[in-house]
Amino acid sequence: MLAPAAEALGVRFAVLAETADSPAAQVIHDVVVGDYTDFATLKAFAETVDVLTFDHEHVPPEHLEALVAAGHAVRPGPQALIFAQDKILMRRRMDELGLPNPRWAEITSTADAEAFAAEVGYPFIAKTPRGGYDGKGVRVITDSAEVADWLSDVPVLLAEEKVDFTRELAVMVGRSPMGQTAVWPVVETWQQDGVCKEAIAPAPGLPEEKARAITEAVLTVAGALDVTGVMAMEMFETPEGFLINEFAMRPHNTGHWTQDGSVTSQFEQHLRAVLDLPLGSPEAREDVSVMVNILGAEHEDLYRPYLHVMAHDPAVKVHLYGKGVRPGRKVGHVNAYGSDRELVLARARHAADFIAGVDPNPHPEMPAPAGVPATAPARSGAADPDERA
Amino acid sequence: MLAPAAEALGVRFAVLAETADSPAAQVIHDVVVGDYTDFATLKAFAETVDVLTFDHEHVPPEHLEALVAAGHAVRPGPQALIFAQDKILMRRRMDELGLPNPRWAEITSTADAEAFAAEVGYPFIAKTPRGGYDGKGVRVITDSAEVADWLSDVPVLLAEEKVDFTRELAVMVGRSPMGQTAVWPVVETWQQDGVCKEAIAPAPGLPEEKARAITEAVLTVAGALDVTGVMAMEMFETPEGFLINEFAMRPHNTGHWTQDGSVTSQFEQHLRAVLDLPLGSPEAREDVSVMVNILGAEHEDLYRPYLHVMAHDPAVKVHLYGKGVRPGRKVGHVNAYGSDRELVLARARHAADFIAGVDPNPHPEMPAPAGVPATAPARSGAADPDERA
Repeated sequence: MLAPAAEALGVRFAVLAETADSPAAQVIHDVVVGDYTDFATLKAFAETVDVLTFDHEHVPPEHLEALVAAGHAVRPGPQALIFAQDKILMRRRMDELGLPNPRWAEITSTADAEAFAAEVGYPFIAKTPRGGYDGKGVRVITDSAEVADWLSDVPVLLAEEKVDFTRELAVMVGRSPMGQTAVWPVVETWQQDGVCKEAIAPAPGLPEEKARAITEAVLTVAGALDVTGVMAMEMFETPEGFLINEFAMRPHNTGHWTQDGSVTSQFEQHLRAVLDLPLGSPEAREDVSVMVNILGAEHEDLYRPYLHVMAHDPAVKVHLYGKGVRPGRKVGHVNAYGSDRELVLARARHAADFIAGVDPNPHPEMPAPAGVPATAPARSGAADPDERA
Repeated sequence: MLAPAAEALGVRFAVLAETADSPAAQVIHDVVVGDYTDFATLKAFAETVDVLTFDHEHVPPEHLEALVAAGHAVRPGPQALIFAQDKILMRRRMDELGLPNPRWAEITSTADAEAFAAEVGYPFIAKTPRGGYDGKGVRVITDSAEVADWLSDVPVLLAEEKVDFTRELAVMVGRSPMGQTAVWPVVETWQQDGVCKEAIAPAPGLPEEKARAITEAVLTVAGALDVTGVMAMEMFETPEGFLINEFAMRPHNTGHWTQDGSVTSQFEQHLRAVLDLPLGSPEAREDVSVMVNILGAEHEDLYRPYLHVMAHDPAVKVHLYGKGVRPGRKVGHVNAYGSDRELVLARARHAADFIAGVDPNPHPEMPAPAGVPATAPARSGAADPDERA
């Protein structure tokens, strides 16, 4: 989804893709197929471009350090990216910055787990510090024995209190090497089985002082970590304020609404930022913008339902990724915008779920839109390894 | 510029490009370099796709007819495209449809020219029926001797009265093979030396009944010619109404504002139409949208002024084409939108002309925006052969 932004900006864009039929490889002219975990492959690709950036956080940090040492422009740099790669380093850094963490601890033994449970109670959340996403590498711990099993596979776990949140929020910032920043409006997000399903911009009813505190926090993080490109900060909203959940240092699912709802999309901003171009306006263009993910479900062929959705609502914006459909896989998303939030939400949900072939009414408080099949298959929340949030 | 729309729609997109570094070839994965005037090349390319469409009208009609006869989906079809290719056929057809033509005649001799001048007076306009664009193949005739010279090169000319117009207007329609249509708001356009320089959507102060008559006319044409894809109708506004100038059956310069100013861009609509997908909403998203072309001028390297423009106005949308700069060549355009027309116009003009390096104030009634260099090179209106309007 960076490709259209590159096209408009007149920027030549090349991709190192894992496979020749990956979504990016389908739509970019200059494609190298190779393994990003292999340093020689990365290095050879780096020689062909002016600036390197990523659409995930899984490139090994030592490779990134070596590329920087060899003089390549790596944006965001490994010194920033490490805090999106390693959740324990991130928690420690947020504490240092005085930003609101949930209570957390490093766990290397059953005794550690019991000590943490004594502080926060069961259940608590345990996460592998590295490599998790979309609910992978995250478990709800109700007994320290569950940690003991896990610790035979991994040396250390991050334990976090189970936050009793009112809702989840997210905010995105763009930051250039020169230090210019631009923050989009705070959005409300809704996760389904650990996978982002919806985002509403701006977050309905968010008090202005809370929005300001969140904006200041994400600017603090972007500056302190010397982030370049766009970064997403996901949060839990609590009655008192908010707690930081996690970061992504790249265009993020919670920012897809910006493609159609903001003056500058997160994809354009990411390119402007990593290229050290002046940033674009992050202003919202509409009273309400909504993004709803299309998660693979009943329909293997999305084409027929897609036709119906286009005919039913000529103002909804469907974005498909050119991926094969698997249960729970993010295969596209729908953006809608307008003035009436309930109507915009209903339109986007109907379109996304009708295309996927799932229960058109997963959100308990919403009535089902008209024209939706009565029978709805059970939905699966399983993510897939190719998928990033 | 169709490529980003294809990406969002999840449509695989291939291009037959004249050269490996042409703008389309830079941003599309599947590129075949070849000559569109060679039938074998066209036919081999046609075998690889489901639907064929064009970004210009210069593919020989007999090749298109042969492709249709061989069972290929050619959209728009040659039966429609011929009216954008041949201006005499177009004038005749508009007369048949009862739509408002300027007075016109076919000229094959000096005697014809003198007879026409006796009717409409000198000067009148003469055009080659085929192959002209952006002021090429168009002359102002003040004496029948000028026609005599030209007729030694071409067998027939189209003569048209020189219309005393108040301004130029344009309207675009999308139409699918199924016959669904969608018309965008009528825009005001401003030509500089025969080249489109600006478009303002919607056309300021256009009376509703005139807008309705124009919308009905373009729908009549689209239906009568069985157009598929998007079509632009350019017009002269007169005190009494409007007169048809010419047609383009493809995304057109006068529709570039739709990329940022309309729910569905002309590029997305063209793909939806030629693929017989349901059409998207052509509604304007803003009170005023403006497009100003970046015509090659003083700056050979656009990068530095581009930086300044992005920094000066973070809400302006610059679209560059990846072309080398030559005097008068369309190398990009700027879209801006908002509520205050004069301000939106000033922002877009300033950005486009600052990037190109031309006189920032070509439009007589506009004050020069602040921050623009005082010295301005003379502007050239010469178009180039790679350029389509």
